[in-house]
Amino acid sequence: MIKLYFSPMACSAASRIALLEAGAEAELVEVAPRSKTLLADGSDFRAVNPLGYVPFLEDGDLRIAENGAILQYIAARYPEAKLAPTDDVGRASLQRWLSFIATELHKSLFMPLLDPKAPAAVKEYALAKGAPRMAWLEEQLAGRESLLDAFSVADAYLVTVLTWTAVVPVTLGPETRRYLEAMRRRPSVARALREEHALYLAEQARGAA
Amino acid sequence: MIKLYFSPMACSAASRIALLEAGAEAELVEVAPRSKTLLADGSDFRAVNPLGYVPFLEDGDLRIAENGAILQYIAARYPEAKLAPTDDVGRASLQRWLSFIATELHKSLFMPLLDPKAPAAVKEYALAKGAPRMAWLEEQLAGRESLLDAFSVADAYLVTVLTWTAVVPVTLGPETRRYLEAMRRRPSVARALREEHALYLAEQARGAA
Repeated sequence: MIKLYFSPMACSAASRIALLEAGAEAELVEVAPRSKTLLADGSDFRAVNPLGYVPFLEDGDLRIAENGAILQYIAARYPEAKLAPTDDVGRASLQRWLSFIATELHKSLFMPLLDPKAPAAVKEYALAKGAPRMAWLEEQLAGRESLLDAFSVADAYLVTVLTWTAVVPVTLGPETRRYLEAMRRRPSVARALREEHALYLAEQARGAA
Repeated sequence: MIKLYFSPMACSAASRIALLEAGAEAELVEVAPRSKTLLADGSDFRAVNPLGYVPFLEDGDLRIAENGAILQYIAARYPEAKLAPTDDVGRASLQRWLSFIATELHKSLFMPLLDPKAPAAVKEYALAKGAPRMAWLEEQLAGRESLLDAFSVADAYLVTVLTWTAVVPVTLGPETRRYLEAMRRRPSVARALREEHALYLAEQARGAA
């Protein structure tokens, strides 16, 4: 059975969405984001992933880090869920989106904004670099329900990243907002975000205690 | 025929390596990195890729951006070159490496260091975040000739990123240095870097003129 290490509302939420889409049985193991320990037993998550970040997936002997790799693995493991194209051209489009979301949005724009320890200059730099990317995304989403011809793991990733605009100063254009709101009504997305948000609030409460 | 838009010594060098490995006939179109114009005719590269960055690949009607997607496309287009595993587990390992190199090294560490306009605080932040990633990479490379069981497009990407240490203050550990030096002796890598470096010097000379 797949074991997914996650932290609430982190980018690992995309994998939760994908697993729900696939109707997969999976064990979800919560990692406390500050202490990098497993919530269940307080053990060190760095013994699982030395780099200390989620998502991290185990499936039998296989161990995979990195969101894009994990999402594509889930899609390949549950082909009947059709979460990724399987032809070369479709796969290139998917990988293009996964890579854009990971490098240009997640890492370059949102990560510094989400980091409470990042200096103001770092956040300003990220916002300046990110603005044309968000504008381009807005153009790409015009009139679209999904990034590819149908829902894919790239949508699971994008919707996860876009939810972070609730806590960082990135304003969504009207087409991006419409896309996000439509995605939030999709049952797998709605359920995943509801579950993640409840766990996030519990995590915040523990942090404040 | 594949058309690859590149700038000398940018991450598009990884695609040049992959194309040489595959013995592919390809047209390489140089983009001036500052003006974002095609060197040949001065036309606007943003008309090709509105985001203005390389690599960008055209193959018939197909258009792909993002290094990881392009490298995997080249691997799939020339299967006899065996530049990528084709089973689900091997593919997951490859994608894990491509994603790690893209997000943790290229975007988070090297990109701000390479940007002459990035403030000092941004560079310091990148170096602090990047140090444990480079240390982990050093561990992973211990005794290894390639990231996977054999040379793959992930090596093409990693070797490209590591060459940037010639101009940014990132020190390589002994295993990483050994890996890089061995890679540089590989004919495709040696030739690609020689070609790219000559074009880079020409670009610098034009910039200084």
